[in-house]
Amino acid sequence: MANLRIPGPTPLPPQVLSSLSQQVISHRGKSYEKIHQEVVDNLQYFFQTKNPIYLLTASGTAGLETAVVNFFSPGDTVVFFTCGEFGNRWAEIGKRYDLNINQVKFPEGTAVKKEIVQQTLQKIKKLAAVFITHNETGTGVLNNLFEIAPIVKAHSSKPLLLVDSVSALGGVNLPMDDLKIDVLITASQKAWMSSPGISMIAVSEKAKERQKNSKIPKYYFDLSLYEKFSQKNQTPATPAVSVLFSLKTALEIMRKQGREKIFKKHLELRDYFRGQIKKIGLKLVVTDKEASPTVTSIWPPEGVDEASWRKLLREKYNLVIAGGMGDLKGKIVRVAHMGYVTKSDLNQVVDVFKKSLKEV
Amino acid sequence: MANLRIPGPTPLPPQVLSSLSQQVISHRGKSYEKIHQEVVDNLQYFFQTKNPIYLLTASGTAGLETAVVNFFSPGDTVVFFTCGEFGNRWAEIGKRYDLNINQVKFPEGTAVKKEIVQQTLQKIKKLAAVFITHNETGTGVLNNLFEIAPIVKAHSSKPLLLVDSVSALGGVNLPMDDLKIDVLITASQKAWMSSPGISMIAVSEKAKERQKNSKIPKYYFDLSLYEKFSQKNQTPATPAVSVLFSLKTALEIMRKQGREKIFKKHLELRDYFRGQIKKIGLKLVVTDKEASPTVTSIWPPEGVDEASWRKLLREKYNLVIAGGMGDLKGKIVRVAHMGYVTKSDLNQVVDVFKKSLKEV
Repeated sequence: MANLRIPGPTPLPPQVLSSLSQQVISHRGKSYEKIHQEVVDNLQYFFQTKNPIYLLTASGTAGLETAVVNFFSPGDTVVFFTCGEFGNRWAEIGKRYDLNINQVKFPEGTAVKKEIVQQTLQKIKKLAAVFITHNETGTGVLNNLFEIAPIVKAHSSKPLLLVDSVSALGGVNLPMDDLKIDVLITASQKAWMSSPGISMIAVSEKAKERQKNSKIPKYYFDLSLYEKFSQKNQTPATPAVSVLFSLKTALEIMRKQGREKIFKKHLELRDYFRGQIKKIGLKLVVTDKEASPTVTSIWPPEGVDEASWRKLLREKYNLVIAGGMGDLKGKIVRVAHMGYVTKSDLNQVVDVFKKSLKEV
Repeated sequence: MANLRIPGPTPLPPQVLSSLSQQVISHRGKSYEKIHQEVVDNLQYFFQTKNPIYLLTASGTAGLETAVVNFFSPGDTVVFFTCGEFGNRWAEIGKRYDLNINQVKFPEGTAVKKEIVQQTLQKIKKLAAVFITHNETGTGVLNNLFEIAPIVKAHSSKPLLLVDSVSALGGVNLPMDDLKIDVLITASQKAWMSSPGISMIAVSEKAKERQKNSKIPKYYFDLSLYEKFSQKNQTPATPAVSVLFSLKTALEIMRKQGREKIFKKHLELRDYFRGQIKKIGLKLVVTDKEASPTVTSIWPPEGVDEASWRKLLREKYNLVIAGGMGDLKGKIVRVAHMGYVTKSDLNQVVDVFKKSLKEV
């Protein structure tokens, strides 16, 4: 069995795997509705929100696009604070829909700085929204939304705050309602220990109000349809029923553990893994203060080609890790530790790193 | 075990169910690429095409939207020939993107008439495309594309021909290349005996040319990204890996049987089932000539409320069938016979119908 340590899809626990092989059911019947309702209820607990949560049969990227197309109109002034590939991708989506984009880029491997957020927002009078990546998967940086969200919320033009937490939510504390986040997006195959194919999106009352005036065309991503069908715990189109089975089972496991314990586990694994990586003499891309609890980026030792190294890890040691993305492509490696992961999985990574680096 | 006879999700064979519970894999690795390539190859055999086929992690509706947003610009004149709910939905998507829509509606329960197609197209000088539903799931009508496609293709302005075969392809003969269909869409949970979550879209060279000039904004549905990633048998965003496992396994089973045998089986089951339904004195919605090989619509006997009847079927007899949609909502019932289905499944439907109708 491979040690799958890429930042999604992440390994599924045995119970989740088994649940996938249940016979499919009608998505217009009571059995489906019960599962849908239970999934949404458990998600609300982890999102820490009373807002509705919509289940889209699609990848996380589709969730990001859904956030762009539902609440704005062409020409609306928005700010994207980005620090890596997934932030760039979200800003690109915004551009394609003719939003008036201000993208403030932070160097890859570092977090968004609150002072810059403050300064940037001060300069814009009429601001429709701020978009920010909670956990930049491409670099392994966690942005501190406890600091940033209040700055956004203090802006006089009451911008929406949209947060991509695709690769952190479920594993990292992010209280949606307390932080007054308006739109929060994640995806099933990350910290949720589920099969890929469902993106989950929570929407505040304030965002729902804005939705009514949006002039961007859409259909499959039209959240007003999802809202209508969510009244009966259904989705507008056929949902990925088997993937939902996996999400149901994973959430039951997670709910039993409780969110505090899960959030703590992710922080501890991060700190433990970073400690071990330093011990074997490798350098980390991100500082301790800004490091993600779900994915760690590492510089290969000088002279080691990351692609050859990853190939060796995969072929000889059955360890699957990720390379860099965007500007960091070919330069770093990334190890995920979210969802179904233990200290021993990470010890194996460290052991294999030690061995393999003598061979590469 | 329920006899699930709705037009998708359809029941999965045991091997397909088992394949769903394999541990997930990296969507950027060789194992994934091999599966992706095999799936596309087998799909090309059933689509009867040399065109590329893109795998979208999304419902069939998203596939229909993808067909709308990739090849046109606002104001383009197009015709939708529709005869039910799914045709209406596709036309609605076209409207939302500001295409210059001509929707020619045929009464629900009847097929698109070639004479009307001919007359309609004659009146339009500059025609960008014709959209047609191959198999109208909402009524159980099969449109004869062997008659209609050549009429569309004979039009002087060389319109694209876009076909929704979500609920027929794989079970019904539709040779994409012979009929010069430009865009052909289906979805995993129908005749493909797979779990829901993947929509499959084949695109002709001619359509790919038009794609370059499209001015409709999109990202997740942007087929140029899918084309780029398909070069290495990958998808732009994270695919529904487990659903792809199911599709791989189902296609292996189907390929072994061969398309001719599968197409013949669907026609035979249709004819057999319609014969049995007539024998027990129930009336069919669609004529023999226009009847779908994958789903049959039936009028409940006079005085029988379809919802109460379906409830009885479900709760007492564990038989799950569908109701009507759109104008036929509350008026008809629908029984699917596509993919993993045998004569004995349909005999059970007939038996249960007989028994239950004495009780309702």
